[in-house]
Amino acid sequence: MSDVTIDGWSCPLPLRDHPNVVMGHGGGGKLSAELVEHLFVPAFGASSPDASSDAAVVAGGDRIVVSTDTFVVRPRFFPGGNIGELAVNGTINDVAMRGARPLYLSVAFILEEGLPMSELGLIAESMGAAAEGAGVRIVTGDTKVVDRGHGDGVYINTTGIGVLDEGVDIGPDRVEAGDAVIVSGTIGDHGMAIMSVREGLEFEAAIESDTAPLHGLVAALLDAGVDVHALRDPTRGGLASSLNEIAVTAGVGVVVEELALPVERAVQSACEMLGLDPFYVANEGKLVAFVPADHAGVALGVMRSHPLGANAVIIGECVPNHPGMVVARTAIGSTRVVDTQIGEQLPRIC
Amino acid sequence: MSDVTIDGWSCPLPLRDHPNVVMGHGGGGKLSAELVEHLFVPAFGASSPDASSDAAVVAGGDRIVVSTDTFVVRPRFFPGGNIGELAVNGTINDVAMRGARPLYLSVAFILEEGLPMSELGLIAESMGAAAEGAGVRIVTGDTKVVDRGHGDGVYINTTGIGVLDEGVDIGPDRVEAGDAVIVSGTIGDHGMAIMSVREGLEFEAAIESDTAPLHGLVAALLDAGVDVHALRDPTRGGLASSLNEIAVTAGVGVVVEELALPVERAVQSACEMLGLDPFYVANEGKLVAFVPADHAGVALGVMRSHPLGANAVIIGECVPNHPGMVVARTAIGSTRVVDTQIGEQLPRIC
Repeated sequence: MSDVTIDGWSCPLPLRDHPNVVMGHGGGGKLSAELVEHLFVPAFGASSPDASSDAAVVAGGDRIVVSTDTFVVRPRFFPGGNIGELAVNGTINDVAMRGARPLYLSVAFILEEGLPMSELGLIAESMGAAAEGAGVRIVTGDTKVVDRGHGDGVYINTTGIGVLDEGVDIGPDRVEAGDAVIVSGTIGDHGMAIMSVREGLEFEAAIESDTAPLHGLVAALLDAGVDVHALRDPTRGGLASSLNEIAVTAGVGVVVEELALPVERAVQSACEMLGLDPFYVANEGKLVAFVPADHAGVALGVMRSHPLGANAVIIGECVPNHPGMVVARTAIGSTRVVDTQIGEQLPRIC
Repeated sequence: MSDVTIDGWSCPLPLRDHPNVVMGHGGGGKLSAELVEHLFVPAFGASSPDASSDAAVVAGGDRIVVSTDTFVVRPRFFPGGNIGELAVNGTINDVAMRGARPLYLSVAFILEEGLPMSELGLIAESMGAAAEGAGVRIVTGDTKVVDRGHGDGVYINTTGIGVLDEGVDIGPDRVEAGDAVIVSGTIGDHGMAIMSVREGLEFEAAIESDTAPLHGLVAALLDAGVDVHALRDPTRGGLASSLNEIAVTAGVGVVVEELALPVERAVQSACEMLGLDPFYVANEGKLVAFVPADHAGVALGVMRSHPLGANAVIIGECVPNHPGMVVARTAIGSTRVVDTQIGEQLPRIC
């Protein structure tokens, strides 16, 4: 739990007999109902679900976008955020990357017996605040409790639903040679924030996770008339993996200027210390956009005037040669292949 | 894993270097991609997601229904089913209980390092078969791997999305005094199937889980013009908990004839041996319906002519007195209060 103070959380009266989660909190009986009524509902606040049913009825649309993600990050609290906030923002971002307006979230917890109730309270409050801040409603949920030694405090699944406005069509199949590749800000922040805590690294300035909901930035691009071809939020596997996925799916080559990649100094230092390449390190509040070359200027301007895109930069372009392959032009003028990694550089990063 | 043979599963060539799940299978790199391409996509078959994106675009509707559930059942394979089939059917049922047509599922796995690949293969194939059988498409997914000792083989979250046809309005707020209470078949089968395995009980006939998708039964009721007020699938906490939830939310009393409750003989015996009350034992393929008294006959007929409602029976009615309370009239003519249980009678039953 690093340096987080959980004493500050004030446990609602009906839960005080249980300072820690017990198996019964997942049993579907009175303890479950109390947890929902006195912890989740107040924590989720205005965005709270109707607890009287296992399913929610909501307004839909002609085309809806669905995305699911489970969060198993370790530690649960880290500089710049915690697992709850991450779970809300991460799924909002997956929905937003298709150009949809995220509207609803389902939230499902796997709690390990013994989890301090105060920690769950703080996590749930972060989720409520993140959802409210993003204008997204938590419409339904589930809680399971597993016996000690079969979980790790708390795992959270969120599934997001958004509505796609008419005419919006964003996907890797639209990417073509000539497209500019724009990244919305510095890379590697989230992954190195987590790793710094795990490895006990100290820097002049703490590295903070960049966790943030990106749907506003996407909406700004669409509102400005940018013909966005594809979007990705480079989480696990980092920017390198996102670029490779797009290159393979679209059947184009991607060329990136290595010197153009924006990396915070502390992140760069931490990466060097640990022998990691920021290209492969997870982000949780950045996107990479593929847009036609003649829209790149407008797109860059729109991003830079948005708080979450202030450091946006064009990092490269799509080319007809070497389809499916990403190459980086290095500082000394040579090129190197930027491959997808085999396994996982940083386990349990999100 | 009880008596399940997992040797029969034939591992696709590209996965054979890894007979067990490793951390890298959750890393978002090549191993992750191989798992999706060579295990999940073939296993899910026709109902498989488009793996090229973290989010799926699907056709929606004016009103959509969303439900989420995580499955942590132990053991993962049990008489009558396994965790995968249960995860598909369970969420379909939650969506169906609002009267919606379930259309899409998201599937999210938490795998524990070391899980035999063959077991994951069998589970995924069951999910594909269950989804296809129910006419539901798995549209998006996620896989995380946690280190050994922080999971229990496999946990599965499914989130279901359905579309609500015009005019359908099913919910506890519609329940009123005078409504008949109908249960679609025998109770306690799923819970006792699990408990029999865990406790090593032997009976003349094995108790099998009743896991099944109930949306067809619901559609049959609606198609017949039954004005269904409320539906529940009594899982965790059993029928007793479902009745209590409805009684509290609707502000009515519920009176049940104890002798009318349909219970398989083997389930009854197992319950007696273990000191359990079938009223509180989980079901995974039964529903309880609240309908106006003058629709009860038609509803019962419709259920009985459906394969999943052959043993349907009217078990009681809603009354204006003792609102929020469920009472059972016993065999000897007395009445007892059927309360919600405090915690969990049977942990990790679903």
